[in-house]
Amino acid sequence: MSTTECNRSVTLPKGFKAASATAGIKVSGKPDVTVIAAEKPVSAAAVFTRNTIKGAPVLVGMQHVRDGKLQAVVVNSGNSNVCTGDQGIADATEMCQLVADHLGCKVNDVLPSSTGVIGRLLPMDVVRKGIKEALPKLAAGEEADKGAAEAILTTDLTAKAANRVVKLSDGTEVTLGGIAKGSGMIAPNLATMLSYVTTDCAISSEMIHKALTQAVANSFNRITVDSDTSTSDTVVVMASGEAGNAEITGEGADYDLFIEALISLCKELSYDIIEDGEGATRIYRVIVKNAATVEDADTVGRAVADSPLVKTAVHGKDPNWGRLAMAMGKTNVNYDIHKLTISIGEIAVFTEGMPIAMTSKNEAKLIEIMDQKEVAFTFDLANGSENVEWLGCDLSREYITINADYTT
Amino acid sequence: MSTTECNRSVTLPKGFKAASATAGIKVSGKPDVTVIAAEKPVSAAAVFTRNTIKGAPVLVGMQHVRDGKLQAVVVNSGNSNVCTGDQGIADATEMCQLVADHLGCKVNDVLPSSTGVIGRLLPMDVVRKGIKEALPKLAAGEEADKGAAEAILTTDLTAKAANRVVKLSDGTEVTLGGIAKGSGMIAPNLATMLSYVTTDCAISSEMIHKALTQAVANSFNRITVDSDTSTSDTVVVMASGEAGNAEITGEGADYDLFIEALISLCKELSYDIIEDGEGATRIYRVIVKNAATVEDADTVGRAVADSPLVKTAVHGKDPNWGRLAMAMGKTNVNYDIHKLTISIGEIAVFTEGMPIAMTSKNEAKLIEIMDQKEVAFTFDLANGSENVEWLGCDLSREYITINADYTT
Repeated sequence: MSTTECNRSVTLPKGFKAASATAGIKVSGKPDVTVIAAEKPVSAAAVFTRNTIKGAPVLVGMQHVRDGKLQAVVVNSGNSNVCTGDQGIADATEMCQLVADHLGCKVNDVLPSSTGVIGRLLPMDVVRKGIKEALPKLAAGEEADKGAAEAILTTDLTAKAANRVVKLSDGTEVTLGGIAKGSGMIAPNLATMLSYVTTDCAISSEMIHKALTQAVANSFNRITVDSDTSTSDTVVVMASGEAGNAEITGEGADYDLFIEALISLCKELSYDIIEDGEGATRIYRVIVKNAATVEDADTVGRAVADSPLVKTAVHGKDPNWGRLAMAMGKTNVNYDIHKLTISIGEIAVFTEGMPIAMTSKNEAKLIEIMDQKEVAFTFDLANGSENVEWLGCDLSREYITINADYTT
Repeated sequence: MSTTECNRSVTLPKGFKAASATAGIKVSGKPDVTVIAAEKPVSAAAVFTRNTIKGAPVLVGMQHVRDGKLQAVVVNSGNSNVCTGDQGIADATEMCQLVADHLGCKVNDVLPSSTGVIGRLLPMDVVRKGIKEALPKLAAGEEADKGAAEAILTTDLTAKAANRVVKLSDGTEVTLGGIAKGSGMIAPNLATMLSYVTTDCAISSEMIHKALTQAVANSFNRITVDSDTSTSDTVVVMASGEAGNAEITGEGADYDLFIEALISLCKELSYDIIEDGEGATRIYRVIVKNAATVEDADTVGRAVADSPLVKTAVHGKDPNWGRLAMAMGKTNVNYDIHKLTISIGEIAVFTEGMPIAMTSKNEAKLIEIMDQKEVAFTFDLANGSENVEWLGCDLSREYITINADYTT
């Protein structure tokens, strides 16, 4: 598995084209419509927000991907089409129909996404115009990828794109490309988070669904900016099969190679989202080791990644092990405090229920670690063998500014 | 039930004295030792933090209150005696012994509490000196109450005290008094939250325990500043029995009168804590109506009270119903979105899955409501008959300043 040097993403795998347009949904006048299309309906899978209030595009998308096939996704930013009733459903469906008409596929071969303001009907006149403007421009290449990645953004400061190339057991090279958006309301499970992944790997609908579920659990579902969960989150993967490998139809060496690449790609996009977290200036990893169950490990990881007092300590560069202990202790996870060890970077700070007395050398090292842009906190529960890693970001005054002054 | 006009608290009920001292544990030089004592061992109950990392005073206090009797509490601020191993247990026990020696009671008739920095041994030389200085000053009166309320504070900006007088069925007047501290790391279940309540009501150990559990569930456990949970939280009630009423030994009219007063007292202290939340400038009530179960209602109440995006909307005075819908939707509570109604103040803003179109009059009213110091959000789930109310506060830049710059 490797990453190519270029910034290419969704049209790097064979068999995909992309296009974007500026419809005028965003008041900023930035690009706001993206279409990503395969040449025919291909194996596809998607996972969606678990918020019980789901946007119209999510409800429509859940139906359209049910048969494990998609030919395209169509995305607008600037308006999320959430809490918009029957008209919202009709609008999301019409977005798909416009793309289907152009491609010559069925309406349910297209998955719609919308992100932006909640509770307002889509301005369909400009949405229609934007989609119709984008469709004739469908192409593969650096410009198409860049346009697609930018037109899905809202409050994001940077576009997020990644790719992977992996050699399967028969020597075939398979390529994966992905783009993502998201910076606020980010928390499991998926939150104002959109991501579109393409691959030319030949893989069955069943196995691509399994791979996506596993990849999301290990990446997008282990990041949190602010513990809030959006009503629009969607991750989609489409597999064109054009790499020419023997189709992956079950578990085995090729599936393992593919899933490793997919997880790695999703982790890179997740990292980019956290790095771009609203007001974030620093990133921290919460490494939970030797938990009795994955669920226990995730509970601790999430509690520490979500804790406002840990977030503010990271912001203040404070090696505050007391807040780390508090945050893990507020969960109801089973562990023996006499076996628990908490480390900041490679320095153990807490063990056997007590802080570890610091040498002046280690104290200096701790200050140095907390001064880095990224810091790792490790919780060794010594209570089993499950390990997980979560990503969080600090909580800054800028987060308040962005979210208290944001107008609805 | 009534509140007396004075600011009296823990020594207003007959049979209690209090004293405080400045031992020098706090670097600020403010008072940091409080003792509250009855004339003999009396009916008592206590509830403690559910954080699995518990301070030494919590572990000792759990043992000492087990027999349903206490004669005194001894509290220091400035150092929490948390994560301090066997020495911490010995120190908390010694604090009790010093008080027991003076009062002539057993060591387990005294409950210890500590609040402040985590992970450092108590400076027992100054703690000892402070307790010995306080004990001879034990007295009832306004000065004693004020001193007790102030010496338990840490980052609090204001002292928190309340009282209630309630007439039982035989005409006997029973008095309750309470003090509390807490402003950050406040979340259920109890968080850097200490509260001491006294009453002269004659009530059995069993019923005072039942009453305290019920009162805490309806007050302190329904407030949240930042979703974090401290390792030291403790609420204690002592009942001297000196009011002369027929002892309450079971449920009935007198128990109902007493519990109503106790809940009301605890709610006032809870409100004071939220009002003093770190960096808080505004308070919001989350009123959950017609839920299927109390658990469902609490899940929604907590999710909305904890949501950073709701907190920042309140800070920005933004009537953002989308964030309210998102925050309740991220729970897995059962409801029918077509029956759900969300209101801001008395204005319904969301019903049948859609926002309600606003008249200009209602729009103006919403702006006025969001401009008040206190705002109420009501979620009518139309799914049962359980109602609860939570309290939250806004999230401000000042919270970041307090918690990023706080030194450990």
